[in-house]
Order: sequence, then C-alpha cells, then structure tokens
Amino acid sequence: MRYGVLGTGDVGRALAGKLVELGHEVTLGSRTKDNAAAVEWADAAGPTAHHGTFADAAAFGEVVVNAVGGRVALTVLRSAGEDHLDGKVLLDVSNPLAIEEGELRLSPVESDSVGEQIQREFPGARVVKSLNTVNCQVMVDPSRVPGEHQIFVSGDDEGAKEQVTALLGEFGWPERRVFDLGGIRTARATEMYLPLWVNLMQGMGHADFNVEVRRAR
Amino acid sequence: MRYGVLGTGDVGRALAGKLVELGHEVTLGSRTKDNAAAVEWADAAGPTAHHGTFADAAAFGEVVVNAVGGRVALTVLRSAGEDHLDGKVLLDVSNPLAIEEGELRLSPVESDSVGEQIQREFPGARVVKSLNTVNCQVMVDPSRVPGEHQIFVSGDDEGAKEQVTALLGEFGWPERRVFDLGGIRTARATEMYLPLWVNLMQGMGHADFNVEVRRAR
Repeated sequence: MRYGVLGTGDVGRALAGKLVELGHEVTLGSRTKDNAAAVEWADAAGPTAHHGTFADAAAFGEVVVNAVGGRVALTVLRSAGEDHLDGKVLLDVSNPLAIEEGELRLSPVESDSVGEQIQREFPGARVVKSLNTVNCQVMVDPSRVPGEHQIFVSGDDEGAKEQVTALLGEFGWPERRVFDLGGIRTARATEMYLPLWVNLMQGMGHADFNVEVRRAR
Repeated sequence: MRYGVLGTGDVGRALAGKLVELGHEVTLGSRTKDNAAAVEWADAAGPTAHHGTFADAAAFGEVVVNAVGGRVALTVLRSAGEDHLDGKVLLDVSNPLAIEEGELRLSPVESDSVGEQIQREFPGARVVKSLNTVNCQVMVDPSRVPGEHQIFVSGDDEGAKEQVTALLGEFGWPERRVFDLGGIRTARATEMYLPLWVNLMQGMGHADFNVEVRRAR
C-alpha cells in the first residue's frame, strides 16, 4: 500500500519507518520539498521511502497519516490539498498540545477536538483518530509494554475504522486490543486523556507505558 | 475516625456506608437537616451513622469527603463552613460534569479543576483529589475489577496524601496501586479523563472497570 505521512518529527518518522519496514511505500511530507530530516530519512530508509511536500505526500498516499501537531493540523492539511484527501482514509494521530508559560495547554478542548475539526473541514476524507494515547515508539511496537493494553479508534466511517484496525494489526496491536470508542466526536476523549498521560510520564520518568482497561465482565 | 461525608447521592452513600462498615463514625450531610435519603441511610446503617446539614457533617468529621457534584462543590463547601474545614483533610472525589443538550460537558476544564478551586478558596483545608476516575461501587470495592488497576491521588499536602492513601488501603486499594500524580494541579488530569471513562462505559455497557497502567520498566 502507498502511504503519505505528514510531519517529519519523531512521530512522523517513527510511523513512516515502520510502514517501510512492513513493505509499504511511503512519502514523508513536510512544509518544504527539501526538508533535511525528510531527505535524511528517505535516504536511510531505502528505495520505497520518498520525501516531498505535504501535497506530494498526500497525493502519493492511498492512505494519509496526519503526524503533525494538532494545533497546525488544519493548516498543514489545507496545504496538502483537499483533492488529495478526498475519499481517502486519513489517520489522525495528533494531540492539540502546547506548553504555555510552563503549563500544558490543549486547544481545542472539551467542546471540540482536532479529529472533529479535520472531519468538518475535509468532509470527503474518512478521518480516523487513533494512536494519540501512546508515545510514538509504543505506537509502532506495542510489545515494548507488557500486558493487554489497548489502543483506541474514533471515526464516523466504519470501513475506514476497519482499515485502520488492520493497519494497527500490522503494527502489533491485535484486533482484540483495538477499542472502538464510536464516532469521531469521541476523539475529544482521547485528546483530553493527554494531561493524565503527561502526569503519568512525569511520575514514571519515561514514556514506555500504556493503559489496559480492566473489566469485571 | 470521624468522617463528614457531603452529598447524599450514590457516591456519598456508597462512601459513607463503607466507612461505617469499616468501623468509623459518619455524618452524612445534605442541604437540609431532614433530607429523606440521608435519614433513611442513617436509620439503616446503625448507631455510628448520623445525618445532618453540610455544616453538621463538616463540623463532625475529622476528615471531610466532598461527594457532591463538582459544579456545586464550592457552594456546598461554603455552606459547610470554612471553619469546619480548617486544618482537616478534605477528600474531593467529584467531577465537574453536566449533560447539556445531550452532550457531556466539563466546567472547569483544562486551565483549572475543581480540586484547585477548592484548595484556592479554602487554603486551610488539606485537599486531596482521588477516586474520581472510578464508579462509586469500584471506589469502595476495587476487587470487583480484576487486575492491578490503579487509583490516583493529587494534592499539595504530603501528609494529607498519606492519610488518604491509608484510607484507600482500608477501601481495598493497596499502597502499590495508589499512583501519586503530584500537586493538586494534577487534578486537572483526572477530571479530564472523565470523557474517556464515559466512552469506555458506553462501549462496555457497564461501569465495573478501571485502567491499569502497564509499563515497560
């Protein structure tokens, strides 16, 4: 499968690298055509790894992955081009966080989410929110963390969620550990989990963790 | 120990009932002296169970438990009386939720929390936020849910957190499963977890669950 991954940060490179490892062809997209991190990544990752602009990556992908920060997601997706997203599964792994005066802040929060913003602005895209509740190393290698910990999916398009669930399976998340929260509106819930994730990370001193939902029945 | 439990809803009665069972003496407080639910509870729970106003309950308790909704917590605590809270451990188990037009809403959220609001308005109280991430039946009987799932505490007063940790132990939460998130500011994190809790509850069709933090190291 061909993937367009938007964002050359740790998250984008981790996802793009894993996709290439799995045998997919990937274009890693950035603001400029000659982004140093993207060029270096593509050179190192081999012949099925390419780099380009956000628009190049989105045009290339049969599936598009939003791996830029949640606060710039709409701007980046606009520059990727609505035509290049139409009808495609758009996996959004972002969180709308920023550190302001030493404090973690989320925006949007509570009455909206990045997942919903994207779906509203690009109604032709089949948006699925997932993977935003774990560190990027855990995203693509859940076996780093012991136990039957879960990954969540939110989206309005059932077929798109099935496709993302299959991709999560390739990453190492068996279907029994993929928890479908419901429509894209439930992206609010996983985005709002971020402050707890940050406090847990600070408490443990590392990001190699995830939560397992324990249930009586 | 003498406890004052504010709030005669499911949460207040579950906590008050468990405290009496454990051998403590409890006054369950409500807006009025003759609240039907409180009278009925006290009659059924035996000679160490009393009822009264919020002020009666707060005056009675060596430890005060806020078990009213987060949105009315400040109003209720004002009527309980600052003098009755001064120097005492004040365990806040509330969440600031409301359903507005069929949607879950939180207020305050993100830049503030009920835990912080209470600590700011009652600086003499030793506020600890805890138990707000599980259903009230799980609060007082964590063995309903299998696994090493955790309960979180947030607060600025280390001694108060130790006292609450001991109480959690009486409820069935061993110390190894009490996760100290830090100061009262981290109450934001557990209050913001509520939307995910609600989506999980909706997905499973019941509230008999909790999360276990799984970690690589």
